[in-house]
Amino acid sequence: MKNYENITMIEGGICAPKGFKAAAVNAHIKASSTKNDMAVICCDNLCNAAGIFTQNKAKGAPVIVSQQHLKDGKAQAIIVNSGNANTCNANGMEIAEKSCEITANELGINVDDVLVASTGVIGQKMSIEPFAENIPLIVKQLSYDGSDAAATAIMTTDTKKKEFAAKFVIDGKECAVGAIAKGSGMINPNMATLLSFVTTDAAISSVMLDSALRAVASKTLNMLSVDGDTSTNDTLVILASGLAGNNEITEKNEAYKVFEAALFAVMVNIVKCLARDGEGATKLIECNVIGAADEKTAAAIAKSVISSSLLKAAIFAADCNWGRILCAIGYADADFDIKKIDVDIASKAGKIAVCRAGFGIDFSEDDAYKILSEEDITIIVNLNNGKFEATAWGCDLTYDYVKINAEYRS
Amino acid sequence: MKNYENITMIEGGICAPKGFKAAAVNAHIKASSTKNDMAVICCDNLCNAAGIFTQNKAKGAPVIVSQQHLKDGKAQAIIVNSGNANTCNANGMEIAEKSCEITANELGINVDDVLVASTGVIGQKMSIEPFAENIPLIVKQLSYDGSDAAATAIMTTDTKKKEFAAKFVIDGKECAVGAIAKGSGMINPNMATLLSFVTTDAAISSVMLDSALRAVASKTLNMLSVDGDTSTNDTLVILASGLAGNNEITEKNEAYKVFEAALFAVMVNIVKCLARDGEGATKLIECNVIGAADEKTAAAIAKSVISSSLLKAAIFAADCNWGRILCAIGYADADFDIKKIDVDIASKAGKIAVCRAGFGIDFSEDDAYKILSEEDITIIVNLNNGKFEATAWGCDLTYDYVKINAEYRS
Repeated sequence: MKNYENITMIEGGICAPKGFKAAAVNAHIKASSTKNDMAVICCDNLCNAAGIFTQNKAKGAPVIVSQQHLKDGKAQAIIVNSGNANTCNANGMEIAEKSCEITANELGINVDDVLVASTGVIGQKMSIEPFAENIPLIVKQLSYDGSDAAATAIMTTDTKKKEFAAKFVIDGKECAVGAIAKGSGMINPNMATLLSFVTTDAAISSVMLDSALRAVASKTLNMLSVDGDTSTNDTLVILASGLAGNNEITEKNEAYKVFEAALFAVMVNIVKCLARDGEGATKLIECNVIGAADEKTAAAIAKSVISSSLLKAAIFAADCNWGRILCAIGYADADFDIKKIDVDIASKAGKIAVCRAGFGIDFSEDDAYKILSEEDITIIVNLNNGKFEATAWGCDLTYDYVKINAEYRS
Repeated sequence: MKNYENITMIEGGICAPKGFKAAAVNAHIKASSTKNDMAVICCDNLCNAAGIFTQNKAKGAPVIVSQQHLKDGKAQAIIVNSGNANTCNANGMEIAEKSCEITANELGINVDDVLVASTGVIGQKMSIEPFAENIPLIVKQLSYDGSDAAATAIMTTDTKKKEFAAKFVIDGKECAVGAIAKGSGMINPNMATLLSFVTTDAAISSVMLDSALRAVASKTLNMLSVDGDTSTNDTLVILASGLAGNNEITEKNEAYKVFEAALFAVMVNIVKCLARDGEGATKLIECNVIGAADEKTAAAIAKSVISSSLLKAAIFAADCNWGRILCAIGYADADFDIKKIDVDIASKAGKIAVCRAGFGIDFSEDDAYKILSEEDITIIVNLNNGKFEATAWGCDLTYDYVKINAEYRS
């Protein structure tokens, strides 16, 4: 996507765009919870809205309800909890619907305009009580500074809050787009989100909003893998308040392109933050595939490389076992000539060539170790077969991934 | 496959069938090697032969050479090394071809009748010297008791030797089939082998041998995953000496079925042993999918379940986080109704139901912990939608998987 000079990263997260409030409380969804685990995000007015949801056939009840409520391309509020995914529960649909109802009643809006999302353990019993008790309390606390509270409340095994915003100008009006996300394990395309909520005050039709969201997700959240497990509850939704005052974007004109670029700027930061905070991760791994005959080939190879457990374990140890890169390229579901492939490895400590035309070349193990000892590692794969490219993000595989997931329910 | 009473497991591995010799030495392929790392397997006469090889596009040079040498459906010997995969090396083809030549010269057979296989680090420099020096020494030591030596020489990160054999009767003649394998990490269908060499003294045509090998591999090696990485060097070959004296099997008659069942009996043991010895593994995980509308659906779901990193980590901790089973079923590439699915978990400590009709049900966490604390865990998934079934094998994900793969080259 094109770079625009007038897109600037700002503070404020999902409350940076005009009209959006949020708040959170500790609803003790998990009895042991010591942090906030339930949040409401809402807008002063009805928004155009779009969403992308998990492709897992074991869908969480909140996913099914949100998809129904989004059918008209409109939404005004989101009720979200961590600590329990509300998935594979016999009373799951009832809880998801009822929590939308309670939220709608407290806010005085239509139940169809409330979206719902849950994240946490799958197949754990749940009741409506925490929602009934706590939604009224949250609604009372709703604030134009509430992004941080919501971003923190949706965290599960996340160690860092994911919250970004950008400002940009359309029709001489200053607009903003903001996003929060949670996600650490059970992350794989498509979708790779777990949960991400995006807001904007730009005026844009539901159809254009959906188009921009899909285009940006395909280059960001869908290019991320932590562990190859696709969650049952992946939800990415965007609400547009229109309060910035620009002419509503209804076609793919220049204003649409600026909006899409701003959304990309926010989401690429979210994705890097998700990868860097992958369960147990100590490093961010980025794979740039260049010189591809088409984008699909580039994307398939980039995703295959950042998904290899063996490569991820080697990078954890700063071991330049580059043969594992070639191996992962080799089993990507794509057509290419392995004999044309060049591979370089880079970080802020430098860059080394490890493979030319499919064969290994001499390199300094000391230099390689220095490069791989940095936190942000880039693997550059040149297919030397065209002009298309793609980037995917992942993280290393560490003892702590095992530790976190061996003990997740306790 | 049908069970035949007259198939009995026996000792002797690949030397159990008549006519087969093997031997191994330490050729110091890796300078630090303290164990044998090069072996020759050969038969007294020219054999009908068949093979299945990696689908990875970054194929090791030995795979390419063996595929060429197998084109006529004949082979008599195999030269194999561990410690270096001879993959992505500029002189790889030269080494693979030359090592066949040396072996052929020493044995006094045709170079086209020698197969070659290598396993170890990918993209590591290699020279022909260890082969030139050691093949003559190995050939001098060839013995009808050499299966153990060969099975040990092909091990890399394996902690246990994989060696099985079975005897059976065709046309009143006692026949045998034996197999060895190496494999611990970088194991995923298809192929899931790394290396496996199978011998038999049954008389069977190359075409029928190929057919039986593919049928059995689809139910054994291709239903195994350790870490989702498909190796560059996967090789499964079978040599049939015909020395048992039965009438040559040339069609899918009763004798063919007995042979296939005996091959299955050997290979299912190999596969369980590979899974149990997966890198860092402490447990064997078997997933039986039953009640499927077709075998493809059953196989896709069984493989998805045993491949989930999250489930594998939970089972390592004996944590009955069954929601991860539903999650992995949900993202399997197959059609099914999640609302019909029942899940049970079993081991020799008992069996518990955890999910009925897609929803969680009450179970005793204490019982679940006891069941999951055993070494062999079975997950039974009933799709309640037909009569087809499939079984896949995998292992838990542990700290040691990370440790082994973070330090593999050192």
